[in-house]
This record gives sequence, structure tokens and C-alpha cells, in this order.
Amino acid sequence: MLINCVVYKKGRKLADIPVEDISDYVTQEDCFVWVALLDPSHEELAVLAEEFGLHPLAVEDAQKGHQRPKIEEYEDSLFAVLHTVDYPVGPDAEIRTGEVAIFVGRNYILSVRQRTEKGFIDVRARTEREPELLQYGSGYVLYALMDTVVDRYFPVLDALGSELEDIEEQIFVRNSARSNIEALYALKQKLIILKHAVDPLMESTGKLYGGRVPQIVAGLQEYFRDVYDHLHRIHQSIEGIREMMATAIQVNLGMISLNETEVTKKLAAWAAIIAVPTLIAGVYGMNFKQMPELEWAHGYYYSLALMFGIDAGLYAWFKRIHWL
Amino acid sequence: MLINCVVYKKGRKLADIPVEDISDYVTQEDCFVWVALLDPSHEELAVLAEEFGLHPLAVEDAQKGHQRPKIEEYEDSLFAVLHTVDYPVGPDAEIRTGEVAIFVGRNYILSVRQRTEKGFIDVRARTEREPELLQYGSGYVLYALMDTVVDRYFPVLDALGSELEDIEEQIFVRNSARSNIEALYALKQKLIILKHAVDPLMESTGKLYGGRVPQIVAGLQEYFRDVYDHLHRIHQSIEGIREMMATAIQVNLGMISLNETEVTKKLAAWAAIIAVPTLIAGVYGMNFKQMPELEWAHGYYYSLALMFGIDAGLYAWFKRIHWL
Amino acid sequence: MLINCVVYKKGRKLADIPVEDISDYVTQEDCFVWVALLDPSHEELAVLAEEFGLHPLAVEDAQKGHQRPKIEEYEDSLFAVLHTVDYPVGPDAEIRTGEVAIFVGRNYILSVRQRTEKGFIDVRARTEREPELLQYGSGYVLYALMDTVVDRYFPVLDALGSELEDIEEQIFVRNSARSNIEALYALKQKLIILKHAVDPLMESTGKLYGGRVPQIVAGLQEYFRDVYDHLHRIHQSIEGIREMMATAIQVNLGMISLNETEVTKKLAAWAAIIAVPTLIAGVYGMNFKQMPELEWAHGYYYSLALMFGIDAGLYAWFKRIHWL
Amino acid sequence: MLINCVVYKKGRKLADIPVEDISDYVTQEDCFVWVALLDPSHEELAVLAEEFGLHPLAVEDAQKGHQRPKIEEYEDSLFAVLHTVDYPVGPDAEIRTGEVAIFVGRNYILSVRQRTEKGFIDVRARTEREPELLQYGSGYVLYALMDTVVDRYFPVLDALGSELEDIEEQIFVRNSARSNIEALYALKQKLIILKHAVDPLMESTGKLYGGRVPQIVAGLQEYFRDVYDHLHRIHQSIEGIREMMATAIQVNLGMISLNETEVTKKLAAWAAIIAVPTLIAGVYGMNFKQMPELEWAHGYYYSLALMFGIDAGLYAWFKRIHWL
Amino acid sequence: MLINCVVYKKGRKLADIPVEDISDYVTQEDCFVWVALLDPSHEELAVLAEEFGLHPLAVEDAQKGHQRPKIEEYEDSLFAVLHTVDYPVGPDAEIRTGEVAIFVGRNYILSVRQRTEKGFIDVRARTEREPELLQYGSGYVLYALMDTVVDRYFPVLDALGSELEDIEEQIFVRNSARSNIEALYALKQKLIILKHAVDPLMESTGKLYGGRVPQIVAGLQEYFRDVYDHLHRIHQSIEGIREMMATAIQVNLGMISLNETEVTKKLAAWAAIIAVPTLIAGVYGMNFKQMPELEWAHGYYYSLALMFGIDAGLYAWFKRIHWL
Repeated sequence: MLINCVVYKKGRKLADIPVEDISDYVTQEDCFVWVALLDPSHEELAVLAEEFGLHPLAVEDAQKGHQRPKIEEYEDSLFAVLHTVDYPVGPDAEIRTGEVAIFVGRNYILSVRQRTEKGFIDVRARTEREPELLQYGSGYVLYALMDTVVDRYFPVLDALGSELEDIEEQIFVRNSARSNIEALYALKQKLIILKHAVDPLMESTGKLYGGRVPQIVAGLQEYFRDVYDHLHRIHQSIEGIREMMATAIQVNLGMISLNETEVTKKLAAWAAIIAVPTLIAGVYGMNFKQMPELEWAHGYYYSLALMFGIDAGLYAWFKRIHWL
Repeated sequence: MLINCVVYKKGRKLADIPVEDISDYVTQEDCFVWVALLDPSHEELAVLAEEFGLHPLAVEDAQKGHQRPKIEEYEDSLFAVLHTVDYPVGPDAEIRTGEVAIFVGRNYILSVRQRTEKGFIDVRARTEREPELLQYGSGYVLYALMDTVVDRYFPVLDALGSELEDIEEQIFVRNSARSNIEALYALKQKLIILKHAVDPLMESTGKLYGGRVPQIVAGLQEYFRDVYDHLHRIHQSIEGIREMMATAIQVNLGMISLNETEVTKKLAAWAAIIAVPTLIAGVYGMNFKQMPELEWAHGYYYSLALMFGIDAGLYAWFKRIHWL
Repeated sequence: MLINCVVYKKGRKLADIPVEDISDYVTQEDCFVWVALLDPSHEELAVLAEEFGLHPLAVEDAQKGHQRPKIEEYEDSLFAVLHTVDYPVGPDAEIRTGEVAIFVGRNYILSVRQRTEKGFIDVRARTEREPELLQYGSGYVLYALMDTVVDRYFPVLDALGSELEDIEEQIFVRNSARSNIEALYALKQKLIILKHAVDPLMESTGKLYGGRVPQIVAGLQEYFRDVYDHLHRIHQSIEGIREMMATAIQVNLGMISLNETEVTKKLAAWAAIIAVPTLIAGVYGMNFKQMPELEWAHGYYYSLALMFGIDAGLYAWFKRIHWL
Repeated sequence: MLINCVVYKKGRKLADIPVEDISDYVTQEDCFVWVALLDPSHEELAVLAEEFGLHPLAVEDAQKGHQRPKIEEYEDSLFAVLHTVDYPVGPDAEIRTGEVAIFVGRNYILSVRQRTEKGFIDVRARTEREPELLQYGSGYVLYALMDTVVDRYFPVLDALGSELEDIEEQIFVRNSARSNIEALYALKQKLIILKHAVDPLMESTGKLYGGRVPQIVAGLQEYFRDVYDHLHRIHQSIEGIREMMATAIQVNLGMISLNETEVTKKLAAWAAIIAVPTLIAGVYGMNFKQMPELEWAHGYYYSLALMFGIDAGLYAWFKRIHWL
Repeated sequence: MLINCVVYKKGRKLADIPVEDISDYVTQEDCFVWVALLDPSHEELAVLAEEFGLHPLAVEDAQKGHQRPKIEEYEDSLFAVLHTVDYPVGPDAEIRTGEVAIFVGRNYILSVRQRTEKGFIDVRARTEREPELLQYGSGYVLYALMDTVVDRYFPVLDALGSELEDIEEQIFVRNSARSNIEALYALKQKLIILKHAVDPLMESTGKLYGGRVPQIVAGLQEYFRDVYDHLHRIHQSIEGIREMMATAIQVNLGMISLNETEVTKKLAAWAAIIAVPTLIAGVYGMNFKQMPELEWAHGYYYSLALMFGIDAGLYAWFKRIHWL
């Protein structure tokens, strides 16, 4: 589905144009065409591939989807694949990933969104408000799109960070081991999804600002370094969460064992509290001919008192050594 | 066993030829010969080694098999070893690996399959339908073979991914710890087989598209980058599965311990439920002369009621604290 | 909030100046202006960005904060972000981080502190006492600021090291497992905060003394190597603590299990000590017609003696094998 | 002890010569001398060091032994240290390591074996059968020796792999945890010995075929790449075994805990089976005046039947839930 | 404290000189002055810093101590910091570290020892016996000092290796888990001290023999490679010990759990042995009117025989299944 097809000249929007007119503008010196597609059909993409002279391997990648994030150079054009990551707030929220493939040439930029809800209307609006920057051409639009995709990782990261904090608050609480370990496992799965979006992109972005850079992004290196910097920050936070999570899992194992010990102590304490009077009752249930206590008028009550007395003592003792 | 021996000129098939005629074509400028062998005898391979002037060390590798995946340069020819990985669907399916050794020179390409069932008929058919690409010569055939072998890794990867998901669904289920840990161990073994096919090949493929590349693959760098990209994607998925598996094993250890605690709690609860009436019975089994309850008309029934009453209370209590 | 705005000429302080006069000095050859801001408003920073011609991306970073530590080159100026780490002594002390953003050009240095209590008055005083070094200009001030921030990491590191030692003293003590594991987890969290301040900065600082260095710090390479060296030392200590901590957590798990075993042994020993006389009492509670012991005059006392005797023996035995 | 001292000319053996005659041949253009020593005395080595002009540091290394594997360049000569690894088949077999130090110059090659049983007679025989390759000179002999040492690692690797498989077959078997964990520990020790022989050598060998190579091995790069390739294959297998072993140890821990749980379940089940009839017996041992069952003619048998009945039910139940 | 101050000319000792005369010799072409200090006062060091023109940052490092091992280049001089590690034999022996800072210029070498007992008298003696090597000048003395410090690591490494072996012998022994885990933790602490002495030094030493080397050590590269080689060997051994230790800790955890299982089995077995006769006694303590066994003349003895018989059977059974 075609979302937009707009031609820009010297940083200013000229007009919305139909796809067929692209070839009229794409050859002009100061112009570039910005096309946005959403889940395009094979034919839609083929038309644009023809117009812009896209490489068949890149077109195939964009069509099939499920690529890893990357930025590839094809002669004088760039092909970027970004993962979008969405983590809606809510009780049954699941993390969702989509893909944006971006083809960038001197006079065109084509974005192909797949399985993503949020579009880039705001990117277009923002860049159109900054004609002095948009003059840099399609390379600047690439930056604006990447910057937006990357900035959308931060709330996801924050949500995952909060989940870890929630778990950390529970981790030393008794009897929460099962839910903690389930939560840690689920968190790890989400974190890996985010990590797989961030790490390969970080690596690729590094090639857009240091040393030799593709012609299209020349002069924009500080902008791409900024994107790299954001990615690196997310990367570092992910690594921090991962490390704390690994420790949290170990700690959880320790808490489970501690809990086992506490249960065993409780078991032992109550066993003693029941077994001792049972023993006493057994003694006074013996059938010896001569057992003077049996003859006492209040022998029975004395024996009950003995049982309670010992148990009260045991109870106090187990309380003191924290077995109960 | 000779599977095929075909000569191509300017991207088009000329003819099937007998092995003896190879020398007639291999010296012509625009021709190349594509030979496919399956589990060849020492003699079959020796003949072709002679025809193409293959390096004895490479021939020895292809003959002996059990090489690690690699791509080696011998002067102006290439020698590649790929692992094929097969994981048939079915109850007793086992992962199986085979090997394909490929010798590529300017005018020839020779593939030697060992311990593999699936051949490359479809590769030959596909490339013959694309004469404009087949014009690139033997280097393009190398790409087509590698691309096919690598694409066949994806269903294996998907199967392993599904196995992990199956385990993940079981991992928090009670009493599944033993089967989970067996499944995790078996999965790890399979994953390492796939990893050993993918990782060394990825490393080697990286040398076919960046910086100086062997003459034979010149102009095809974007194709080999595509193969590299697929390998990198598989590599990343493997690493993701490995990481989740490591965590799953730890989680499983935690579940085992949790289970132990739950068994201990059950044991303790039932012990209490039996021990308390035993104690009461013991008390009324004492032989004191003066025990008024013993004289009551319904003392026996009261005592039984006491026992049941306490046990009902205990049972309710243990249910509430989830020990039962 | 503006803290200071001072102009220096040939290493000596000329005068405190108002912000508006900066432009008079910033163009003079031997002068540089040193401005210090604390939690500046958007407007304050905008004025200075204008005066010094700062890059908008860097200004945005300084304004927004929450950057990772870094040193970036913008044409002929540098932009550094440092994390300050504070760990006050005291019972409820928490580790606190702040940020210092530093813009350095040939004729100016601007530091922007955020969320930090300790200022850099002492740095200014110290550098003013060393005019021969201050002659190096703004680059030397950058060194002095970095040196100070890094030196302030050492007491934090020492505090964390002491905490590890405190835990180590407790780790083999019985019944301290729960508090140990809580302390280890908390220590790990603090350590990661320090690590995230140190590691990225170390990496960036490495670019200020080896190979090609930015013009501003030329001739000061041995000073920045010294900063790097301090960072490397902290880095190594952190890694050492991390490694010991990982082992300490494992050891703690072992101590928990050992403890469980000891509790089980105690349980078993006491169970035996109670169960054996209960059995004897049961035997003499049997109703056989002919049980000669029951007729003995002191049978009862003999039976009690038997019970105590066996229990004394069991107790001694369990003591000897360290189950009690 | 001198094993051999032979002079070769243009790839063919000239003669066995006494050590004193070495200097006559070592200066001729097409000749090289191949000397083999076994556990040489200080004097023997000193004589040859003098003859060949060996570097004192290398001679000291060869004399003292206990070096790590390495290949060092001394001006126009090479000094290599290889570890031999022997793992005889048999019940009490222990892994044994020895050392071979090799000095290679243009006109000589000197091998010094220490603590090794297997010599290199077969290497000498094989190379003498291939005069066209032996023409490459001492560099080719170095290759042949390295190739032989490395090929002798494979059976050791296979043996260790089989040991892992043996353990894997036992790992899910009940009550084998203690022997498994002992076997895993012992296997790890052996694996590290092999790893310490392979990894440093692999690293050093890499320098003999890529980029600039020492003059002595020029033209033999494909041969040394082949050695490297074998080392890399062993390295990868070792890493695979190590990884599976790490998982196996974790799995073993899990099996131990599972076993504990099973023992606890058994304990609980039998405790219940004994405790319930004990309770019933206790009830009918009470001394209430009015207990109608006691008067029944077959009350005793009914009570026994009740006990057996409940126990049979419990037994069946515990069997069904796999506690017994 | 000044230990020595000697001037050498062309590899031979000229004279012991007072510090004040240093400046007379330090400017002569073939001379160099070798000064050794121990725990010097601020003034002592300042005098020599003045004489030799040492860099203030290096002097500060030497004065303050607690540096990490390193070798830094200051224009045409070198500054090295080495850690000495001492591990005396004996029951309460603790590992102790000291520091040696070495300043090396063309015509001088100054060593500053701190917190170290062993001096370098033997180094001085040995080098004076080798005037042909001492001719290399101060660089050779640097080598000799480094070689000595590094050689003194070997006995420490051996001691730690022996400690690991001692632990390994205990690790599968019952009831040694607590002492094993304490020993493993203590060993790890010592190992990290040694590692922190070795690893950074190894890294720095690598810069003294490959590629461009500082002028002072030119021509001595094979000697520094030898030092590097020793360091690498120690490094590898440390890594090997670390890896075995990590496994040993895991194994220890497994042994603790195994022990727990064995205790539980013992508990269960004895519980059964006591509970069964208790049950029998309970049965014959029932008060049914009609219990024929009670009337039997030897009923009591039969019942005792039954109890003993069953227990003997149980005991044998538990022995056979290794629960007792």
C-alpha cells in the first residue's frame, strides 16, 4: 500500500506526485523523492524497484522480510533494514517486532514498513519544518527515520527495566520464587528480542560515521554518530539488565534452597512438639504392675501438665532459634 | 559416482559430455564445465583432479571428508567445504550431516557430495533458467550452491526453535523436570551440530565480499554478501536459542528445587495430620487410675470427634497456606 | 545556574567576567574563558551555545542528560560527558550518580554539571596555582576536570571493596546466607553503576593519547594517559570484585545446601532420640498375658533406665559424628 | 642421545654422518642436515648449538623444557616447540605430554624430543619417499614433523569424545550421579591438557601461511595452512566437548536434585503407609470404658483388615503418582 | 633508602658513587648509572628525579605506589611498574605483593622497590658477570630485572597449583564439602592477585618486541620476547587453574547435594527400622477383647522375634541398596 510519494527540492516540499511521475523528478539535480510503502504487494514494489533501479537482492530482502537489522552499500545507494519494537502497556501486553526496509539513493528514499503499526508521519512533518537540514537530501531523511526508530526503543527498554525492578523487589520475599523465576524467564525472552534489534544495527551504524563513509551520508556523520550513541546507550543498558538478571536467577535459586531449609526446620520443630508428648503418653501407657504415678490422684493431670510444659518450652526455644 | 558433467558457454548449456572430453572445453575462453560427483571412488576423483589440475591437499580433504566448513584459496582457484544438515520430521528423527566439497576454477566447477541425500538438481535447473547470471561463470555457480546449502539450514533452525518453544511451554509445569532436562540436553547437542556447520562458513564467506576478493568471485560480491547475511542471521538465532537454553536449564534446576520444597511441605502436612490424632490416642491409652474422660459414656466418640475436628482444621490450614 | 565565568591569559587568571563579555575574549589568541554551569536552564545554555558556537547535537545531549560517558570530537572542539559517582558513608547511604558535560574549544571550556553536589572549585584553585601548566590552555583544564572526576571514583571503589570483604567474612558463617545473598545482590547493583561510569570513559580516553589525537589535547598526551591509567586500574579492580562476587554467590549457594544438610542431620538425630524410647514404651504397652518384665518390682524403673541409657548413647554418638 | 644425523641434497638422502662433519655440509647450497636428539645432555645440545649457531635463549628453552607450544622467529631461523600428547588405551591409562623442540635454519633442522615415547622414524621414511617435496628443504621437514604431531592429537581427541559419550549415556540413569561427576571432572582435566597443546600452536601456525611468512617456509604456505586447518578442527571439537561438558555438569546437578526429590517422595510414602495403621492401633489402644468395637467377636481381625486395606489403597495411590 | 648507586662503562662496573656525582657520569656516551632505592622518602626520590630529568607523573606514580603493572614510554625514556608476589611456605602463609618502579633512560636505570623483601642483589651480580650482555646498556638491565621478577612468579604459581591438587584430592571425599569450598574461595583470591600482577604486564611487555620498539630496548627484542613468553605461560596456567576451579566449585555443589540425598536415605532407613516394630507394638497394645496371640504362652517372645526379624530384613535390604 502506498502511503506517500512526495518530491522535495532544496529541502522544501514541491508536491505529492503519483508514482508514475517519479522518473520526471528523480533525474533532477536538487530534487529527491520520498516514497513510503506499507506491506506492499509484489507488484507495487517491482514498479518502484524499476523506477529507482534497486538491486534485486535488496528488493527480495524487503519483500520477504525477516531480515536481521543491517545497513548495506550497493554501489552508490544504501539499503537499511531496521526492526521496530513495540511493547504496549497493559496486562496482556506482548512485545511485537516489525521491520522497516529503507532504500536510499542520491535522489530518492523509499521506506517499506512491514508488520508495524506506527508510521513515520511525524518524521515527515518534523523534517519538513527544518528545510535547512532537509537540504542535505535523502541521507538526512535516512537519519531522521533511523533516529525515530531508535528513539522508540527507549520506552521499551524502560518498561523492561521497570519489570526487572519489580522482580528485584519480590526476589527476597518468601514464597515468591516460582513467580519470580517465571517473570525472569519471560523478561529474558523480551530482552533478547530488543537486543537482536539493537546490536546488529549498532554495528552497522558505526560504519556511517567513522573512517570512509558512503557518499550519501557525507557531511551527516555527527548525526549518525548521535544515532550510534543512542544505540550504544541502549546496548549498555541491555547488558546491565542481562547481567543483573543472571545474578537474579542465581539468587532466586538460593532463595528456593533457603526456603527448603526453612520448611525443613519447621517440619522438624513441629515433629518434636508432637513427638515428645506422644512419648510421654506411651510411657504412661506401659503395663508395668508397679508404676506409682498411675496411682496418684492427679497423676493424669500432672502428666498432661508435663506434656504442655515441655511443649511450651520447645515452642519458645524453636521461636528463639527462628525455626518457627 | 558421476552425477553430471555439463559444459556451458556464455551462460547457456552446450551439452552433457563424458569426462574424457573435459580437456577440450576447459581451455576455451567463454566455457566452463560443471561436474557433480557423489561419494566418488579414489579413481574417479583422481581423474578429475588431473583434468582440472587440483591441489593434492584439497583433493585429499575432499576424499577423506570430515573437514570443517571452509573456503580456501589455491592460487587462482577456490576450494570450499560446506556441511549439509538434515533434520527430517518424525518421531525418531535424528539430525544428520553430510559434506559438499567444491573446487572452483575459472573454467570448471566440481562438487563432491558425501553422506548427503539431497542433491543439487534444482540448483542446476534454476541457474540454467537465468543465463544472464550464469554468464558470470563458475563463481556464480559457487554462489548458487552455497545459497542452496545455506537456505537448507533454515528449516533445521526452525525445527530447533520449535523444540525450544515446546520445552518452554513445559518448563513451569510440575513434574516435567526430568523430561525437560533430557530434552534440553538433546537440543543442545543438535544446536552445536548446526553451529559447527554455520559459524566457520560465515567466517570464510566474509572473505568473499569485503576488501580484496578472489578473482573468480569478482563482480559477485553482493551475492556472497547475501549468503553471509543469511549465515549471520542463522548464527544470531543459534546464539539466541543457546542463551535461552542456558537460562532454561537454570530455571529447570530451580523448578526441581521448588518441587522438592513442595514435596517436603506435603510430607510435613500429612505427617502432622497423622501425628496429632496418634498423640491423642496415646494420651487416652495411658493407664492412670483416675482419668475422668475414660468413664464418660460417649468419651470414645468425643475423642474420635476431637481427632477428626483437629485434622479437619489442620487440613484446611494447610490448604490455605498451599502446603497441600 | 552560572557558577563561574573567568577569563585566563597565558595561564593566569585575568578577571571574572559577565557572560555577555565572553565574545570579547574568546577571539584573542592567548586567552581562554572557563565557564561553569550547574543545572542550567534552557536559556542559559542557549546563550553560551551561541557564544561558543557549540554543535546543536552536543548541546541537546548536555541539556537532556542521561548520556553514557563519552568524548566526542566536533571538528576542532571536544565534547565530553562524565559520570560523577557519590557514595556517602552512613547507614542508609545510597550510591548516586550525576553528570558533567564539558565543551572544550581552543579558547573556551564550558562545564555543565547536573545532579551533582560536589563542584570543581578545588580544580579551579589548583590549576590557578600552576600557571605553567595552565598555559597549555583549555585542554589542560579538561585534563584537570577529568582527573578530578576519576579520582573521586577511588573512594567509591574502596567502599565497595570493603563491602565485599565484609561479606566474605560472613560467608562461611552459619545462618547468614540470606543476609549475605541480599548484600551480594545490592553490591552487584552498585558495582554496575560504577562500571557504567568507568568503562565507556576508559575507552574514550584511550583516544586522547595514542596515535592521532585532537588538536586541543596535543602535548598533553602523557596527562591523559595518566587518566586512562587510573581508569584502567579502577576497571581492573571492578572486574576483580565482580569475579570474586560471582564466586561468592556460588559459594553462598553451597553454604545454603550445606546448611540444609545439617538441619536434616539434626532432624534425623532428634527423631531417633525420641523414636527409640517411644518404641520401648510401645513394647511394654502390649497386652500379652505373659510378659515377665511387667511383673518385676522395679520393671518400670528398669524400663526408664533403658530408655535414658539408649538415648544417652545415641546422643553421644550423634555428637561424635557431628550430626548434633 | 643422538637418534639420527643425516645429510640431504636436492631432496635425496646423501649419508648418515657423524656430528663432527656437520659443518662440512651445512654451508653447501643445496644441502641440509637433519638431526634428531632424544633427551639430550647439556653437552650434546651445546655442540649442535655451536654447529648451527642457535640462539642461546632458544637453546635454553629446549634444554629446560616445560615451554608452551610456540613458533618463534630468530632472524633467518625458526624455533618451534610442540607438545606431544599420548593417551594409551587401557584401564588405568593416563594422558601424558611430552615436548618436541625444533630448530630450523636454511641448511639444517634439529629436533629435540623430551618425555616422548613415539619418535619420528616414520616421518623420515615418508619424506625420503617424496624427494620432489623434500626438495623444499628444511621447511618441508618442519611441516612433516608438525603434521605428524598434530595428526597424533586426533586419536586423543576421539578418545575424549568417546568418554563424553559414555558419560552422556549414563547421565540420565538414576544413582549414577557420583560416578558421572567424577568422570566429568577427570575428563575436563584431560581436555585442558589437550587444549593447552593445541590452542597456542594454532595461533603460532597461523603466522606461517597468511601475509608475510618467514623465508624458510616460503612456498609451503598451503601445507602450513593445512596444519592450521587440522588444529582448528581439533580446537573446535574441544570447544564443543567443553560446552557439552559444562551443560552435562549442570544437568548432573539437576539429576542429583531430582534424585533427592524422589528419595523424599519414597520416604513420605512409606512413612504414611506405616503411620496410618499405627494411628489405628493407637485408637484401639485407648482405655475408654465404652468402645463397642473392642467387644466385637472379630473386632481384632476387622481392625487388622482395616489397616491392610488402607495401606493397600495408599500403596496403589503412591504407585500411581510415581512416589513409589 | 639508597641501596646502590653504581656507574658502568662498556658493560663493566666502574665504581660505587655518591648520588651527587651522578651528573658527572650520566652525560658520558658509554656510561650508565644504576641506582636502587627501597621505600625512598619524598626527598630522596626528588633528588634523583632532578638528576635524571624524570617526568613528574611517573615520579608521582613511583612515590604513591599501588599502580597496576605497566610499561610507559616518556619520550626517550621508559617507566615500568612491576608487582612482586611473595608466597612464603608455612601454615599461616599469606600471599604478599610489593611494587618495583623502574625508570630507564639511555644513561641511567633507577629501580624503586616498595613493600618488597627480596632485593635484586643477585641480578646485579649476575649481570656484572656478563659484561658482553651488559654492554647493551640500561635496556639490558631492565630485561634482567623484569626476568627476575617474572621468574619469581613461578614458585607462587606452583604453590597455587599444588593447592588446587590438594583440593581435588579431597573433592570427592564425603563430608569435606565445607572445607573444600573455603579452600577454593581462598585459592581464588590468591589466584586473582597473581593474575593482576601478570596480565597487565604481559600486555605491556608485548610492546617491547613486536613492531616498533622504544629505542632503549632496540636489539634486545628476543630477550623481551622471552620475558613475554614466560608471562604468557604463567597466564595460561592461571587460566587453566581458574577453569578447573570453576568446575571444582560446581562439582562441590553437586557433592553437597549428593550428601544431602545420602543423609535423607539414612534418615528414611532408620525411620523405617524404628517405625515398623512401633507399629507391631501398637497392634498388640490394642484392647480388643478377643486377640488370640495375647493369650499364647510365648506370644510376647514371638512378637519380639517378629520385630527383630523384620528389622533384620529391613537392615539387610537397606544395606543392599546402599541407603545405609
